[in-house]
Amino acid sequence: MPEELIVPDRYCHVLKVKPFHIHTGALVVVLNDVDAKELGIFANDRVRITNNKKKLSVVAVADITHSENHDFIKENEIGVFSEVIKRLDLKENDLVEVCAVELPKSVEFIKKKLNNQVLTAEEINEIVKDLDENRLSSIEASAFVSAVYVNGFNLDETVAMTRALSRNGQKISMDLSPIVDKHSIGGINGRVTMIVVPIVAAAGLFIPKTSSRSITSAAGTADAMEVLANVSLNFNQIKKITQKVGGVIAWGGALDLAPVDDKIIKIEHPLSLDPQGQVIASVMAKKHSVGSQFVVVDLPIGPGLKVSDKEAAEEMAKLFVQVGKKIGVKVESVLTDGTKPTGKAFGPALEAKYVLEVLENKFFDNLAQKSCELSGVLLELAGKCKKGQGFEKAKEILQSGKALDKMKEIIKAQGGKIFKSEDVELGKFVFEVKSESEGEISNINGPLLTQIARVAGAPADKKAGVLLHVEEGDNIKKGDLLFQIFASNERKFDSAKKAAKASSIQLEKTIIERFV
Amino acid sequence: MPEELIVPDRYCHVLKVKPFHIHTGALVVVLNDVDAKELGIFANDRVRITNNKKKLSVVAVADITHSENHDFIKENEIGVFSEVIKRLDLKENDLVEVCAVELPKSVEFIKKKLNNQVLTAEEINEIVKDLDENRLSSIEASAFVSAVYVNGFNLDETVAMTRALSRNGQKISMDLSPIVDKHSIGGINGRVTMIVVPIVAAAGLFIPKTSSRSITSAAGTADAMEVLANVSLNFNQIKKITQKVGGVIAWGGALDLAPVDDKIIKIEHPLSLDPQGQVIASVMAKKHSVGSQFVVVDLPIGPGLKVSDKEAAEEMAKLFVQVGKKIGVKVESVLTDGTKPTGKAFGPALEAKYVLEVLENKFFDNLAQKSCELSGVLLELAGKCKKGQGFEKAKEILQSGKALDKMKEIIKAQGGKIFKSEDVELGKFVFEVKSESEGEISNINGPLLTQIARVAGAPADKKAGVLLHVEEGDNIKKGDLLFQIFASNERKFDSAKKAAKASSIQLEKTIIERFV
Repeated sequence: MPEELIVPDRYCHVLKVKPFHIHTGALVVVLNDVDAKELGIFANDRVRITNNKKKLSVVAVADITHSENHDFIKENEIGVFSEVIKRLDLKENDLVEVCAVELPKSVEFIKKKLNNQVLTAEEINEIVKDLDENRLSSIEASAFVSAVYVNGFNLDETVAMTRALSRNGQKISMDLSPIVDKHSIGGINGRVTMIVVPIVAAAGLFIPKTSSRSITSAAGTADAMEVLANVSLNFNQIKKITQKVGGVIAWGGALDLAPVDDKIIKIEHPLSLDPQGQVIASVMAKKHSVGSQFVVVDLPIGPGLKVSDKEAAEEMAKLFVQVGKKIGVKVESVLTDGTKPTGKAFGPALEAKYVLEVLENKFFDNLAQKSCELSGVLLELAGKCKKGQGFEKAKEILQSGKALDKMKEIIKAQGGKIFKSEDVELGKFVFEVKSESEGEISNINGPLLTQIARVAGAPADKKAGVLLHVEEGDNIKKGDLLFQIFASNERKFDSAKKAAKASSIQLEKTIIERFV
Repeated sequence: MPEELIVPDRYCHVLKVKPFHIHTGALVVVLNDVDAKELGIFANDRVRITNNKKKLSVVAVADITHSENHDFIKENEIGVFSEVIKRLDLKENDLVEVCAVELPKSVEFIKKKLNNQVLTAEEINEIVKDLDENRLSSIEASAFVSAVYVNGFNLDETVAMTRALSRNGQKISMDLSPIVDKHSIGGINGRVTMIVVPIVAAAGLFIPKTSSRSITSAAGTADAMEVLANVSLNFNQIKKITQKVGGVIAWGGALDLAPVDDKIIKIEHPLSLDPQGQVIASVMAKKHSVGSQFVVVDLPIGPGLKVSDKEAAEEMAKLFVQVGKKIGVKVESVLTDGTKPTGKAFGPALEAKYVLEVLENKFFDNLAQKSCELSGVLLELAGKCKKGQGFEKAKEILQSGKALDKMKEIIKAQGGKIFKSEDVELGKFVFEVKSESEGEISNINGPLLTQIARVAGAPADKKAGVLLHVEEGDNIKKGDLLFQIFASNERKFDSAKKAAKASSIQLEKTIIERFV
């Protein structure tokens, strides 16, 4: 661009592009402090960057680097990251016009929430839209999350947030009815989903369930289901499989059901912020996006869980129902005991095998019990049985083998080939941890067993994990088998054995209450 | 690092360094989502990165990139930015050990403030320390600022914050007494500082004044003083000049008096957050760092200013005094009318020239009046005169020419060569804006004149700016001179003329109230 073409505008400069191929999650550029001063902008102000040749323009947050950082952005240069490079189709040394512009309106609405004022639906929409389009910096997004955490959302705001999150995401629309769903807020809930889905689908309900992978546990539902079948399904596949067999257990991560929610969760994470209104909007938006008509919300209560006391759980339970009513989804919330692990398996393959054993009616444990209870709520909500008879009906479907048959159909429809528990392969290295004393099993330390399973390689190594052989109340003698460690990789196996040994006293203490 | 040396730890990986020479203002690294999953970490979790060869280690915030972004961080790679590169002495393809670690404790304290609990001095120290060492992400830092904005600081917290900010910065210690200072909270206060400093120094007080450059105005005190002398002084120079002539007018930006405060201000900026406790701590920390014993705090009140109503100003005024008492600084707060510009100059050279004219007693306007009032407060505080006689004493020093003599000494000590107003050079391009109607000057639109001065090139071009020729209450006729525009660069001069023309109706409307 020749010098003559530079428009002498009071808040504009022409700068040379220095590209950095880094995804920052926001529209960000870096200016030298000399240029920033001439443009009259301060760190975190907005600039409009225009690629005049291509007639492309975008507003970005300006970060400012100081002249002493000689290696970085020099005078008359602008550092641009992947999001801006892509939007403006830029390459190194391109010239762009950079002008100071006003902050987006949503920043004003964030300030309004910080000032404890109620936001209108339009204002919430604007914030969600700007988050979606990466127009807010992490500073502004964090201020929003903090504001909602401190000052809260009322019912109308929660409903508006639910609608906004859902509107900004992808949707599945199916001409099926009734579509049901199940959601648990935190808690160690084993693989309830993998039992609920076949039960309710066997009863004629439609349940296109999307689940997450593990972050800190030994396996998420998507990890365990992936042992049996393909879980990376697109919208069309989810739709077709639901139409055909009534149920799906897919990984929700790649579906962009509520992409803004994923951004908000990322911000909430370091401070473990979980503003109630935001949690409800987040869950309900995703249910709304898959067209759910009836939803059971499971609120496990217990110390250290997302919901720690009964009063808070009851308030949240009621809000879920109210928000559901406003967006046309019938919700039943149930409070459950979240302190005990359900099932005895830790790790994808072990959990998948365990689920199949439940479906094969090898035993009826607390995992089966909870699964039938939640399935029962859905059967009642959708009118498949009278109120109070759901649990029995679910148990009947499970024990008759209909749930297992349905699970086989689902596995097949999702391209899987493992239909029997004995066909699930486990790690070839196996170590048995035995009791060093006698006593009564008083308390199972789930988090510690999870850690050992992770050291053994779970969830990345699907065949690794821990299988518990005792349950609370058992009386055991010295030398009795407490649990097994499975691994595929010898080094990780050794590490897991070491980890088990290092924590053996702690484990013995929590697993066994000795007679004295 | 050979494979055998890799310690098979449950939360550690060995990754290959991919350096990005970008200053992010925080200790940040980027991991591939596959590695993040194996490490069991989520976006914004912490990792310890160790360069085993050099025995260097640092904890950083992990950002996570998704596999679809192929151009960026691949499996087994770690993206590191300037701050981490420097701390670990890394180069491309170095191998580092990366382990998941807990969040720093300060994150817990930020959460505590979000929960509206009072922080202890130790907790505030920890937050400030972690901000100083770039250990907090922008998300966490923003949550802290938001929390303080919403839930506030009590007196003890404000004092603790003041001490923590000051402790983390550089200090000047001088064996001089009494050391005084002056601070204005926002407002359009012209160049009061450049008149107060020579007046109080001439009275025998010591005033090592540090000032800022302009961000959005036509000139900051440092910009205007730089027309006359060198303002980029180090601690030693400030100390020596204060000892020698009693006063200094330096640029504070490079001194790191309260570096954490600068980081906090950067975060407050986009949302214009100015939590009262934080503002007070910020000001008092800097005064404490230069050893001030007596401080006058000027609180300009007016719509659109930092302090908009009298009640809030009074509360703030009292808090300044109380915090001062706790840290051993005697403070007097004064409320002033912040709605009118003081002086008629907009732009570094014009303002420097104007200040010299005041000191030369060419006129005694509202800038001189306010400067004598604030100087008077300092003279009274430091016991240089009786209460109630400060203003008269200051005026006497100004009108006797002693303030001018002192200013010449200061300019000389700071290496300057311009001592007379007529020696200040202005831009060679001059344009006169004349009235297009007759009327009475009812209101001077300072922000609009500032904008025109900036279009003309101020503050980067020191000789550019606007000089007003009328004041409120003047009766003018059509064709009377309203103001002059000065510029050094012809293109900018043309732009400024255009800008003046484009806004002439708006200017006429606000500058002149027509007779009807």
